[in-house]
Amino acid sequence: MEQRVRVAILGASGYTGAELVRLLSRHPRVTLAALTANRKAGQTMAQVFPHLAGLDLPVLTTVEDVAWEDIDFVFCALPHGTTQVLIKDLLDGPHGGRLRIADLSADFRLIDPEVYAQWYGHAHQALALQEEAVYGLTEFNRARIATARLVAVPGCYPTSAQLPLVPLLKAGVIEADDLIIDSKSGASGAGREAREGSLHCEVSEGVHAYGIGAHRHTPEIEQELSRAAGRPVRATFTPHLMPMNRGILSTIYARLAPGADDAKVRAVLEAAYADEPFVRVVPAGTLVHTRHVRGSNLALIGVHADRVPGRVILTCAEDNLVKGASGQAIQDMNVMLGFEETLGLAQAPLFP
Amino acid sequence: MEQRVRVAILGASGYTGAELVRLLSRHPRVTLAALTANRKAGQTMAQVFPHLAGLDLPVLTTVEDVAWEDIDFVFCALPHGTTQVLIKDLLDGPHGGRLRIADLSADFRLIDPEVYAQWYGHAHQALALQEEAVYGLTEFNRARIATARLVAVPGCYPTSAQLPLVPLLKAGVIEADDLIIDSKSGASGAGREAREGSLHCEVSEGVHAYGIGAHRHTPEIEQELSRAAGRPVRATFTPHLMPMNRGILSTIYARLAPGADDAKVRAVLEAAYADEPFVRVVPAGTLVHTRHVRGSNLALIGVHADRVPGRVILTCAEDNLVKGASGQAIQDMNVMLGFEETLGLAQAPLFP
Amino acid sequence: MEQRVRVAILGASGYTGAELVRLLSRHPRVTLAALTANRKAGQTMAQVFPHLAGLDLPVLTTVEDVAWEDIDFVFCALPHGTTQVLIKDLLDGPHGGRLRIADLSADFRLIDPEVYAQWYGHAHQALALQEEAVYGLTEFNRARIATARLVAVPGCYPTSAQLPLVPLLKAGVIEADDLIIDSKSGASGAGREAREGSLHCEVSEGVHAYGIGAHRHTPEIEQELSRAAGRPVRATFTPHLMPMNRGILSTIYARLAPGADDAKVRAVLEAAYADEPFVRVVPAGTLVHTRHVRGSNLALIGVHADRVPGRVILTCAEDNLVKGASGQAIQDMNVMLGFEETLGLAQAPLFP
Amino acid sequence: MEQRVRVAILGASGYTGAELVRLLSRHPRVTLAALTANRKAGQTMAQVFPHLAGLDLPVLTTVEDVAWEDIDFVFCALPHGTTQVLIKDLLDGPHGGRLRIADLSADFRLIDPEVYAQWYGHAHQALALQEEAVYGLTEFNRARIATARLVAVPGCYPTSAQLPLVPLLKAGVIEADDLIIDSKSGASGAGREAREGSLHCEVSEGVHAYGIGAHRHTPEIEQELSRAAGRPVRATFTPHLMPMNRGILSTIYARLAPGADDAKVRAVLEAAYADEPFVRVVPAGTLVHTRHVRGSNLALIGVHADRVPGRVILTCAEDNLVKGASGQAIQDMNVMLGFEETLGLAQAPLFP
Repeated sequence: MEQRVRVAILGASGYTGAELVRLLSRHPRVTLAALTANRKAGQTMAQVFPHLAGLDLPVLTTVEDVAWEDIDFVFCALPHGTTQVLIKDLLDGPHGGRLRIADLSADFRLIDPEVYAQWYGHAHQALALQEEAVYGLTEFNRARIATARLVAVPGCYPTSAQLPLVPLLKAGVIEADDLIIDSKSGASGAGREAREGSLHCEVSEGVHAYGIGAHRHTPEIEQELSRAAGRPVRATFTPHLMPMNRGILSTIYARLAPGADDAKVRAVLEAAYADEPFVRVVPAGTLVHTRHVRGSNLALIGVHADRVPGRVILTCAEDNLVKGASGQAIQDMNVMLGFEETLGLAQAPLFP
Repeated sequence: MEQRVRVAILGASGYTGAELVRLLSRHPRVTLAALTANRKAGQTMAQVFPHLAGLDLPVLTTVEDVAWEDIDFVFCALPHGTTQVLIKDLLDGPHGGRLRIADLSADFRLIDPEVYAQWYGHAHQALALQEEAVYGLTEFNRARIATARLVAVPGCYPTSAQLPLVPLLKAGVIEADDLIIDSKSGASGAGREAREGSLHCEVSEGVHAYGIGAHRHTPEIEQELSRAAGRPVRATFTPHLMPMNRGILSTIYARLAPGADDAKVRAVLEAAYADEPFVRVVPAGTLVHTRHVRGSNLALIGVHADRVPGRVILTCAEDNLVKGASGQAIQDMNVMLGFEETLGLAQAPLFP
Repeated sequence: MEQRVRVAILGASGYTGAELVRLLSRHPRVTLAALTANRKAGQTMAQVFPHLAGLDLPVLTTVEDVAWEDIDFVFCALPHGTTQVLIKDLLDGPHGGRLRIADLSADFRLIDPEVYAQWYGHAHQALALQEEAVYGLTEFNRARIATARLVAVPGCYPTSAQLPLVPLLKAGVIEADDLIIDSKSGASGAGREAREGSLHCEVSEGVHAYGIGAHRHTPEIEQELSRAAGRPVRATFTPHLMPMNRGILSTIYARLAPGADDAKVRAVLEAAYADEPFVRVVPAGTLVHTRHVRGSNLALIGVHADRVPGRVILTCAEDNLVKGASGQAIQDMNVMLGFEETLGLAQAPLFP
Repeated sequence: MEQRVRVAILGASGYTGAELVRLLSRHPRVTLAALTANRKAGQTMAQVFPHLAGLDLPVLTTVEDVAWEDIDFVFCALPHGTTQVLIKDLLDGPHGGRLRIADLSADFRLIDPEVYAQWYGHAHQALALQEEAVYGLTEFNRARIATARLVAVPGCYPTSAQLPLVPLLKAGVIEADDLIIDSKSGASGAGREAREGSLHCEVSEGVHAYGIGAHRHTPEIEQELSRAAGRPVRATFTPHLMPMNRGILSTIYARLAPGADDAKVRAVLEAAYADEPFVRVVPAGTLVHTRHVRGSNLALIGVHADRVPGRVILTCAEDNLVKGASGQAIQDMNVMLGFEETLGLAQAPLFP
């Protein structure tokens, strides 16, 4: 048997933390060496997440109590804002030379410190790391991820927007203006914090848009679309809260570039993802459902002709906790550590 | 006590039929005189819809067995396509001179026979009636509805699109091009027919778009938006199936007309609906939820600035079975018969 | 028009408070004169419950700021434990001579102070009122409710257990021993407090029992079943949290008394409820669903033969927020004030 | 790599068929050689179940078109009643000498032909096989399963009743009389057939009991409990349809045998399952949720003291499609073929 890397998960008491545990517990090259949850330190994962009771896991500790000399790789699933200083301290610390990190927070996703300050209301506390960090949308960034010390795992919504749009903007088959991204997310995206708006009675049997014109994933989306288009892109992004637990569906409205049509759009995407294990362009006439990716690292893309001339409609479905968070983080780790990219990520979706 | 009109509901065994019964059973000017359901004739409504067991209702009959001489007003909640000949025969029949009809099917909504034939695959069978029928979006058409013999009750999706867009197109504060209507509907919109795609396991815990670029409500939307804009409008319309029973949320993306902004858009809508009992523009900074209209005839409209210059986002929430179907049909009946428009429609929404 | 009573609702920011507002806003003899919510004082109900935005309601105040001289009747929908002293002070205060109160908390339901202390962990603070309070299961207690100053509105679970069992125990057709009450409740029963266990992700797509052998509704159930049986009754009661918002279904397992059978059981219940507007024994072979009472004050009872000799199975469905709380409170108020018992409670259930 | 067995799944277009495919696609000793669905023959699994699109699977065929000479093992997931003749013909046919079968239908579960005829309304068509078939509740029957040619995989409800009750009846710590099994199942138990009662609008946001005193799983439960008790047992069994997709929770009420208490009950169960990979007795004070087993082959058992003297309450949670059907079938196959029993069944549950 090959040697295993020793992994710490910081913030194991949230949904993305639990999802990392679920997936990594079956990863043939990983040992879960440390799990932290500062407010629940001393508890077992079985107490916090009884569905994981069958696994042989370390007891939850504080971040401070991790035996860092034993850790090779860190998944950081802490809230936005708290993460940057902690990671800086880790990398500057005695074991920093050895550690590699996949950060699931938003702290290192935005390249421009001014954009960060504008959306998060304070100056970034680890500017050098922000510059160093590699944006971890695996399919687009493998080479840089492979050598990165710190990867910023993309947000759930931005992943669902980029997977269809980045290849099309690069190929120039759609216009970069007037992009409209209408996204629908399950409730797990709001995390496990006890808030009135996340209660069953407030989420089930209804739907609403939120953060309209103001959601913090917008600058991340625009940054990466701009990178793909080679010029500044402003996009309209509207998230909606769905009465379901898992899944994001983004319905994207774009104008075709001169000479392009939906067949051309489809061809570009099919070529881009022909060899990708986790991204699939569904056949024409087929609909993408979030149900068809539940629990898996898959993303499905649909290409649809619009009746309105000069327009095309794209759909993208993913599991927000997997390809939108923990699964992609593991995919990044696999690339960083030279493992086969699909290790630990090959189970089929769960339906119904 | 004032005299009651005697009402027949054709197609009482579907969800919109049951919703008509629920609402009309509390209407002070209506007697439910006949309920039809050809395949369930002979059964009681309590057998078909046990939640209505407490009401004193006529037994279900076939359409043929209705005592038409006793009927003043007809709600027709039959499937699309089957309705046009039936209504023609009714109005041409011995009691046709007296009958007035609100038809909830799509049969009389489209003005242009060629558009009808193109979307429904056959020539219309009652062309004169199609021309005579009045489109029943009450807020926009009261005068014509008041004197109509036959009202075509709007579709659920088209209602949620028109309520925000029609006043804006009339006022010229948004562009008529590049309108994008992203709509999310509960499962009751698919009716009570036993189909695999409507099963709990296929609808819950997930979301998908369907009928992309091809849904039959599109020509109805375009017809009415064109009427408002005073020129042909083509709009992009994408319906989505939500894991919930009731409610439609439409998120609408529009370009502002030169000189307009979101405050102007808000002002136009607030003026348009200032005196309307069923349509409410929610305050700035407030979100519309389908939960907030459940079971009621209300529609809520939100106006949201977009970060992208020159654009505005509108949201509209309604209960697809009430303002999107049976409630609006009753509102139309109230207008047709000179009743107070809110009669039978004044209950508060049910939440949670 | 007849004179209206002026009503205060204490605790209007919870689900039962909102449900009182929803129902009372349509009550022809009630004016909503005061709504309190100490932590949300100064807000409008539309801010706290946007589905009630269309109603003309007083702004939320603290309990202290109510103009008590204007109030005739009080609904108290505050948490258990906080209520007893508040109600005592109200009734001892300057306006106490005029006030009548329906209390939806558990504070005045238990007759025996020792039982109260045992289950709630502290001595009761208003013993004289505890003795005076009348238990408000309307169907069983009309005469005493009619003259009561303070009515203790039954719990949601106890109502669903008593409606089938009390007439049977009184008639002696079932044994009082070995009663098993397996109850299933929607999430609104847990209230609007933000707790991890009430989150959508923790409630949807699953089911669990809780409070097994230890739920605080048990002594209330046993007290009232004992009263009906004329001797002490201990019953097994197990609540379950359902992935739904509204509704309680209790499935009850009983042994038949010698000589009794399920037909006899049915006959007793049909006789008991023959003239009741809100309780209905469904026909043999029919199933009761919580869906069939949603939003209404109805309770449905099913009687089912068991294959096991000497046993019978009963089912009872109610809406926990209506007949299980706010609706029954209004029914009690109607009796207390000499109104027709169904006033404000006559709308049909909402399905689907 | 070790040799793989070639497996056929008959009835691959149902939910249990799809679940077999999901699990077996990851089984290291299995090749999926044939999938049948007579009404969908010629389609791909991706067309019927798009969530399985990523797998390399044979096209659906009719049963008749299977190349039986290539098949080693058969999972039969066909409807009750249709199965017995088909399996008889298979085993009597030219390849019958080699085939081994796990049948997920009810056809071979009942030992007594008269009981079968009574509950299914016709004489059994394969009496010799009915006698030969081994009941496949793996934990209780390993030795016989290991050598069986035909295993009758238990029903979903019976599994959740037997796991807690069989060891207790064998140990004599509970009484065999007056057992009450109140079970709650997700909608996938009703299969993928398009029926009105399985529609989202008819299942979500509500709960009801069905088949009260008459469900066909009752004789199976009684047969196996009788075997464990060593004398005839009649049990009360009531199934309920939950507004969720997956999971069964059975809440079981039993009388303690003289001298027994809940600690003794717990001890018996903990001893019985100490070495079992898939059955876990949760710690005292812990609740079992169906959420904690979703997608896995686990069953969780809770032991709860009742306040009523002489009684105990048991809870059991499983995923009805896995341990209640397809997972247990694979567990049986592993035993039949001498594989490690957990092969292909080791993924962690999916939550939320």
